[in-house]
Amino acid sequence: MEVTRKNYKDSLSTVYSAIEEADFLAIDGEFSGISDGPNVSALTNGLDTPEERYTKLKKHSMDFLLFQFGLCTFKYDQTKSKYITKPFNFYIFPKPFNRTSPDIKFICQSSSIDFLASQGFDFNKVFCHGIPYLNQEEEAQLREQTEERRNQQANGVGTPSFISPSSSKGPAHVPEEHKDFINRVVEKVEALFSNSEKTLDLDPCTGFQRKLIYQTLNWKFPKGLHVETVETEKKERYIQVSKVDEEERKRREQQKLEREQEELNDAVGFSRVIHAISKSGKLVVGHNMLLDVMHTIHQFYCPLPEDLQDFKEVTMCVFPRLLDTKLMASTQPFKELITNTSLAELEKQLKENPFKSPQVETTERFPSYDTAQEQLHEAGYDAYITGLCFISMANYLGSFLTPPKAYISARSKLIEPFFNKLFLMRIIDIPYLNITGPDLQPKRDHVLYVTFPKEWKTSDLYQLFSAFGNIQVSWVDDTSAFVSLSQTDQVQIAMNTSRYAESYKIQTYAEYIQGKEKEKPGQTAKTWGEDGWVKSNYTSSTTSGFGYPRMRKRSISPVQGAQGTEEALIADGWSHYSYPDSTGSKKMKTDVPSGQANADAVESKTSEGWLRTTDASNSAELSPAHDDDDEDDKSSGDTDPCSDAEGTITWQQTSTVHRRKSQKNKKKKSEAESTTSLFDVPDLW
Amino acid sequence: MEVTRKNYKDSLSTVYSAIEEADFLAIDGEFSGISDGPNVSALTNGLDTPEERYTKLKKHSMDFLLFQFGLCTFKYDQTKSKYITKPFNFYIFPKPFNRTSPDIKFICQSSSIDFLASQGFDFNKVFCHGIPYLNQEEEAQLREQTEERRNQQANGVGTPSFISPSSSKGPAHVPEEHKDFINRVVEKVEALFSNSEKTLDLDPCTGFQRKLIYQTLNWKFPKGLHVETVETEKKERYIQVSKVDEEERKRREQQKLEREQEELNDAVGFSRVIHAISKSGKLVVGHNMLLDVMHTIHQFYCPLPEDLQDFKEVTMCVFPRLLDTKLMASTQPFKELITNTSLAELEKQLKENPFKSPQVETTERFPSYDTAQEQLHEAGYDAYITGLCFISMANYLGSFLTPPKAYISARSKLIEPFFNKLFLMRIIDIPYLNITGPDLQPKRDHVLYVTFPKEWKTSDLYQLFSAFGNIQVSWVDDTSAFVSLSQTDQVQIAMNTSRYAESYKIQTYAEYIQGKEKEKPGQTAKTWGEDGWVKSNYTSSTTSGFGYPRMRKRSISPVQGAQGTEEALIADGWSHYSYPDSTGSKKMKTDVPSGQANADAVESKTSEGWLRTTDASNSAELSPAHDDDDEDDKSSGDTDPCSDAEGTITWQQTSTVHRRKSQKNKKKKSEAESTTSLFDVPDLW
Repeated sequence: MEVTRKNYKDSLSTVYSAIEEADFLAIDGEFSGISDGPNVSALTNGLDTPEERYTKLKKHSMDFLLFQFGLCTFKYDQTKSKYITKPFNFYIFPKPFNRTSPDIKFICQSSSIDFLASQGFDFNKVFCHGIPYLNQEEEAQLREQTEERRNQQANGVGTPSFISPSSSKGPAHVPEEHKDFINRVVEKVEALFSNSEKTLDLDPCTGFQRKLIYQTLNWKFPKGLHVETVETEKKERYIQVSKVDEEERKRREQQKLEREQEELNDAVGFSRVIHAISKSGKLVVGHNMLLDVMHTIHQFYCPLPEDLQDFKEVTMCVFPRLLDTKLMASTQPFKELITNTSLAELEKQLKENPFKSPQVETTERFPSYDTAQEQLHEAGYDAYITGLCFISMANYLGSFLTPPKAYISARSKLIEPFFNKLFLMRIIDIPYLNITGPDLQPKRDHVLYVTFPKEWKTSDLYQLFSAFGNIQVSWVDDTSAFVSLSQTDQVQIAMNTSRYAESYKIQTYAEYIQGKEKEKPGQTAKTWGEDGWVKSNYTSSTTSGFGYPRMRKRSISPVQGAQGTEEALIADGWSHYSYPDSTGSKKMKTDVPSGQANADAVESKTSEGWLRTTDASNSAELSPAHDDDDEDDKSSGDTDPCSDAEGTITWQQTSTVHRRKSQKNKKKKSEAESTTSLFDVPDLW
Repeated sequence: MEVTRKNYKDSLSTVYSAIEEADFLAIDGEFSGISDGPNVSALTNGLDTPEERYTKLKKHSMDFLLFQFGLCTFKYDQTKSKYITKPFNFYIFPKPFNRTSPDIKFICQSSSIDFLASQGFDFNKVFCHGIPYLNQEEEAQLREQTEERRNQQANGVGTPSFISPSSSKGPAHVPEEHKDFINRVVEKVEALFSNSEKTLDLDPCTGFQRKLIYQTLNWKFPKGLHVETVETEKKERYIQVSKVDEEERKRREQQKLEREQEELNDAVGFSRVIHAISKSGKLVVGHNMLLDVMHTIHQFYCPLPEDLQDFKEVTMCVFPRLLDTKLMASTQPFKELITNTSLAELEKQLKENPFKSPQVETTERFPSYDTAQEQLHEAGYDAYITGLCFISMANYLGSFLTPPKAYISARSKLIEPFFNKLFLMRIIDIPYLNITGPDLQPKRDHVLYVTFPKEWKTSDLYQLFSAFGNIQVSWVDDTSAFVSLSQTDQVQIAMNTSRYAESYKIQTYAEYIQGKEKEKPGQTAKTWGEDGWVKSNYTSSTTSGFGYPRMRKRSISPVQGAQGTEEALIADGWSHYSYPDSTGSKKMKTDVPSGQANADAVESKTSEGWLRTTDASNSAELSPAHDDDDEDDKSSGDTDPCSDAEGTITWQQTSTVHRRKSQKNKKKKSEAESTTSLFDVPDLW
């Protein structure tokens, strides 16, 4: 159902009841742009910390407008054994409520706009008929103002909108050139008193002329008239003069107050839908949803807090249960089966064996989406297929139960491991932002932070580290980059070698982080325990995955009843990441089932872990030259024009001679090689 | 004629010939916003210097997008005795040219967008079909890149877009999960070689898969194949494989180069129209056109220079002859006849006596605009009626000639006094920006600069200066304002009184300006002579107008022939403003006919000068509460929400008791009173 300013008020009860009855909700947003920085890759360094990533997104993405919001509600019908869906596609625009309401400015990014245009996006629906909104503070202010005006009127202080304040000041001075005009108006009003008409509409005129009319009429006809400025649809203002007795005048003023109250509710507008979603406390599913969540909170609740920890707390208040299907699809047991986690591809793959297309039916009066006729990047459609993806994946988990279950509800414990973990784009070793607990803290002691003259290119770094075999370069800015060595024990050698260098400088990752923490004193107390980076027991060579251990049906002991079986499954692998001391996260609810991973799980994680998957089929997400997966990034892939120069790019060998040699190595080595060649993808792909 | 990306190339020759044959051109722009500052009134202080105003507009307006450009060409047909018009309405959008072209970000202001929406503006035409553009530097860069690529190819360095650079590296490693996929592709290509098809379109796939295909095909089929990535309209990429011999391959590459050249011209896009206007050197007419000129230069030529003087020079290069109809209408002999200079009102008034509607005819194939059916705020229509206004006013000047002339051409000396003077919105004593010479420098020695705690309101200033009779307050920011006293000799008294004040501080205007100059050392050399403010012989009590002396037909001596008569008329009044030493403006062509004003002119200027007109009928432009005239400000009047708090507002008396008294004064006094009461216009007007 398409919802604009035109049918918004009439649709609200339908929206409310759809949310009320739903088992879970899926959402998606379309924005006027992604990043106002020089290029996206500079904003998504592969070794960002969660704090850095949050700060970058907040700084460079929040000035765009979330102008289309998709909501699809899913309710399971036991008798039909299928989900009943109600998809809504809301158009959003901050139409100024009145002349004193905030005049929002937002940025548009040409590539994003052009991309949406190519997908048939209707901008007129946004700009001409978009539903307005207010955040919580704006709403409170407006309610206060209205209340104040109401009190003033009750106390008889005056009704400034009807009576010219200058009415007590005697006759208005009318400049010579306006005298004829004013005299004609006075004649018309005199005629009004003697005829049977109740109302007289004057011609549109200038503000100055209206002022003169107010002054003149207030002075000439102090009683019995109600004078009001009215606006035509074309925003021309004219004066309406009505004959009224005192009672009628009061009735009109009461009416006006009521109108104001209604206008105020209208001004809160779309925020009411978000409030309803929030109050429902239901599971909210999205695909690659971090930006959706950030924009939704920023636009409809409050400006985003400075600090990541505060953001997590706000998020939990607004959306107590979130699930990101991109993160779910990138996690055991799905990551082995799913090669491309972009929404469109995911949806296709989840129709194939071993997955099953979910049984869904769209409620009457709702236009039913057809997944064969893709309407990607319409927020309502994207929300719809995000929900389908969630159902397919959830039901697949049921196939591991004894006996297998074909339907897994949104309340099942089976899906809890995926709650409140939002996918982090293009971070090499931190797959998600953990909203309800401390973030993963991979040990990065094989990483060096190198600063150098701005003339340097990737090849210079490559030369510099030629002695150290495989390296991986992640540019930070013009004059610095992270260089990941393949062997941690080479770090000290590299540090020693660089001691007398003048043109460049090398720091260990730990030194780099310490330097950054020092730059912002007072903030340190708020971040996760400082020393977490040092104490970490996680090393890159035994990269951990998270999620379910690699599943074999046999490996699950047949516990009595489904409930018990589900619990046995909740052994996600990220206990192998280090966590800061609990003192740093005392406010957080931690749901880490530490120690539950069994030996089989550990084995499977070290060989089939997250990072390896990333190297192979998911490598597109690490390479700026591959943009198909960027579709989830809410925009065209073309937002990454300077990728060759500044992206996170992966180098493996120091020369083509070495490169050829490496192809003679065993299979495992050559799998890594596939990442190497990513860099060579031509520009025009 | 409506011009979008769809018909742009086909229309270009029509546009060029229309410009070529025209007598003059009228232009208008529509923008995505006006000001990104907190409110418009803060940006348009009534006592801005031209430098300050330019700096503010540059800082707060240039990040908006000029997204509709109106051009109307006017050619006089002697035989028909009428103008033949060709109106064009161009939709503009910076669609990224390719993946490495600049990804423009622009700001949208909700109130402006909402206003245009209410006028029926078609945003889809802008965003989906807008014509792209490049500024001069972008164009040069792109031409250079293309040239380089062409040279590389001529030297056989390689064609990176066709041949995978990794082709020399042996067989690609294909990860296990992609092996089936790649094998199927190889089978298809093998089939291509054995069948009669010339071309094979593979299914859309990921960038990573395309990379594998390139590598595999280059290795397996080093000759006889042309492999290219093609994009569907929906931006899905797929690979097209063609059988080619060496000759065919070269031909295709040549074709591609030519396509690139054409694409480059397409990318320059709308800028070519502006180049044509510029090269024609023809008179370009606009209404309140400063922002139009600034945006046009900024978007299609170069980022605006820091310095006003440099801006004037760039402007003269791009538009050697400009005429602003709002300024013309605000100038003698028009200002006495025209009460409202907003475009729509001006157009109406110029249909009435003593003016004549111009005879115009729209060329076939061009939709003819009907001024009865207003299409205001469509740039093409606004340009059209701007041209009509210019013709009416120019022809009216002809009525003063002996013998009177009904038709005055765009080349007539009669209109030269109005050349290159762009209307300055809401500056009390400087009506225009003088593009070809130094700006007017009114003496502001009755003006005080007051700083105070941010809690102060206008009423506090009013209280503070209660001893000094009429004052006028122009807010600068939260904690400072200009206060104009009615009598210059009170300045010293006010200064003395304030000597021991702690909460506030008073400076003379001269001190304020000196302080500002000191803040930016190095800039002073560039601005007009510093001391111009001090030496000025202009005082507010004898406010000068500019333009023609108040005309009475009799007062013009009947010189032989129209030519001579025209020259006699060119006695514009602004010699009464002071100019800085000519050393400060040596680069400028000065067209100041100093000393040409005769006694009659001087008399008329002192009594009927610009400022008085401003006080009376034009006062709406001084008062933020009157917004009808703001229509020319390219947006709804609603951009001025906080006017009561921060606008340029006019106070005349220190208490209502005084105010009542003043109404007993003689007419001249009470004319000023009409300005006083402006402040009392209620919020909701």
